[in-house]
Amino acid sequence: MSGWLESLEGLAVSRSKAGLTRRLRPRPAGDPVVDLAGNDYLGLATHHEVIEASVRGLRAYGLGATGSRLVRGSSVAHADLEAELAGWMGAGSALVFSSGYLANLAAVRSLTAVCDLIVSDAYNHASLIDGCKISGVRTVVAPHNSPRAVAELLDAHGGRALVVTESVFSVDGDLAPLAELHEVTAARGALLLVDDAHALGLLGPAGAGGVAAAGLAGRSDVVVTATLSKSLGGAGGVVAGPPQFIRHLIDTGRTFIYDTALPPAVAAGVHEAVRTARLADDRRARLLARGALTVARLREAGFEVSPPAAGVLSVMAPGPEAALAWAEDCRDRGVAVGCFRPPSTPDGSSRLRLTLNAGVSDADFARALAVIVECSP
Amino acid sequence: MSGWLESLEGLAVSRSKAGLTRRLRPRPAGDPVVDLAGNDYLGLATHHEVIEASVRGLRAYGLGATGSRLVRGSSVAHADLEAELAGWMGAGSALVFSSGYLANLAAVRSLTAVCDLIVSDAYNHASLIDGCKISGVRTVVAPHNSPRAVAELLDAHGGRALVVTESVFSVDGDLAPLAELHEVTAARGALLLVDDAHALGLLGPAGAGGVAAAGLAGRSDVVVTATLSKSLGGAGGVVAGPPQFIRHLIDTGRTFIYDTALPPAVAAGVHEAVRTARLADDRRARLLARGALTVARLREAGFEVSPPAAGVLSVMAPGPEAALAWAEDCRDRGVAVGCFRPPSTPDGSSRLRLTLNAGVSDADFARALAVIVECSP
Repeated sequence: MSGWLESLEGLAVSRSKAGLTRRLRPRPAGDPVVDLAGNDYLGLATHHEVIEASVRGLRAYGLGATGSRLVRGSSVAHADLEAELAGWMGAGSALVFSSGYLANLAAVRSLTAVCDLIVSDAYNHASLIDGCKISGVRTVVAPHNSPRAVAELLDAHGGRALVVTESVFSVDGDLAPLAELHEVTAARGALLLVDDAHALGLLGPAGAGGVAAAGLAGRSDVVVTATLSKSLGGAGGVVAGPPQFIRHLIDTGRTFIYDTALPPAVAAGVHEAVRTARLADDRRARLLARGALTVARLREAGFEVSPPAAGVLSVMAPGPEAALAWAEDCRDRGVAVGCFRPPSTPDGSSRLRLTLNAGVSDADFARALAVIVECSP
Repeated sequence: MSGWLESLEGLAVSRSKAGLTRRLRPRPAGDPVVDLAGNDYLGLATHHEVIEASVRGLRAYGLGATGSRLVRGSSVAHADLEAELAGWMGAGSALVFSSGYLANLAAVRSLTAVCDLIVSDAYNHASLIDGCKISGVRTVVAPHNSPRAVAELLDAHGGRALVVTESVFSVDGDLAPLAELHEVTAARGALLLVDDAHALGLLGPAGAGGVAAAGLAGRSDVVVTATLSKSLGGAGGVVAGPPQFIRHLIDTGRTFIYDTALPPAVAAGVHEAVRTARLADDRRARLLARGALTVARLREAGFEVSPPAAGVLSVMAPGPEAALAWAEDCRDRGVAVGCFRPPSTPDGSSRLRLTLNAGVSDADFARALAVIVECSP
């Protein structure tokens, strides 16, 4: 039975012709490349105190959690992190998952226990789309960032609905109109689920996130998800919301119940990262300044560039192969940038995706911008 | 909009009445409890060399991977681990995921690019079931461990099918008839996907897993998944199979492409665990002896107990509340055991789930067995 391998090879050839082959590029320890591709916005992944907190966690707990959260995997490190996250995000309760993807699957599916329609933003992340799909609940896709369209879809629906959006979108870095969306959902008895992955640590008071920035933290009709792997420099995900909902997740969330817990040592490192992030207004100011500098420099050079709401910005490329060549030329000159091509782009177009990183020095950052301009197609 | 919270409270009351409320119980560092509940079968989660390899990884790479595998998350630690896993498991290629759950979602969904029917064992893990669901491909559930039923389902189907099973099942610890299943699939041009999570490190030559033990390692029509969080004491998951399939996963696997990579330091710790596990025939012999001792001791005391194929065995309880009370009494006396109730049990019945652990001392293990018997309902 090798016919299936030939079928796969045929599919690989088609992807190659369309410029959509992907390649893993392992980086060595101490990689000297200037990183404008990762999501370590605040530079906390390599922060000394964060690493040492995780080292202590390793020696105290061992490498892995050894089981699911409910069987053997819950540690004091998880409980402490959850209390800190809930306090920071202004939520009644918080639950940590081993990845943001699994947190989103659980949050969407569990909310559909009390909803019979999902309205999902057209640019939502794959994990939210998969959450809608796996819930089995009827899902309609709303035009990107359109509270009016959401209102019309809700008005046309009789029962209770769930509206799903990101706060800062992962590819273009634009911000959802969260306050307007919440007005729409609240007036119609709908729930609002916000993936705050790219805003937690960056927006809002003390970096509490995009939901907090919109004045919606702690609302009883809002549930927030986020990753612990971006501004917090670690791994894992979190769902934050009313305690009744978190209790429901613990009892029924399949990707919570049937998954090995986040390693306690990672939880310990992320906990230190949260403590650092809450006090990191200086790092957030640096990001803001770098965002403005990047937009000015790239527009000056004639590029179409979106102003970043937080730490992500996107520069359009003529096509997938040009985007790839641009990114590879940058990398050859010591600058890592993201190259987003279909199916990773919501609109089917290709672009460079730049992430701002407070851990990079001013000189390296300026050099990186120059390299990006010089390597452009 | 608080009606939804009242709905959730109503659901919580129903679960409580059915004895199905779940409770997180965070364990402290250095927890003195004897662990017969976790999946750290070989005791590698707290193995000195494993922890120190991860400490070195933390200091070399930082806490998190900072991005998805394709953007910024791949490190030499991931590549080295993948080469070691492929060699151990006898597969052409291996791909590491941030969790076993996500590995299973990707493997099932990606295989359906070349299959139009899934035949799924009735006792399969939630992640495999969700993988079938999210693939959108027609899925039929086959009676547990019945190659004959699988053959009939395949014969009734015209196109190419995918048969999905575990090797050692996670709740009862019984072994699938892999060689017979493969005879059935090979004769009918079907693919076989085996989740080896509870056998990798425990069965087969040098612990290479249940697929290797059945003589199926490296077959071009077999794909293997596993977790890195059980006998390897870490976190994450792996898919191992023909290089053409791994290439397909890299290009199209949503839970691979859109997920932050496993932390490099975890990959480094797991790599050391694999090296240790390959040489750990002594630990495997200890587990085997403990399995026989446990079955003898519990049967002597009058319990219905399944003989373990690897490190899991299950003891029937009269009902969910009795199972819970039994497990809690054990824990009060210093022994952690798993309590599996619906919906975590494939047949709707409740039981204690015991895991054998080579890291526990002989004296502690003997005491734990005595406590389990003394606390029985």
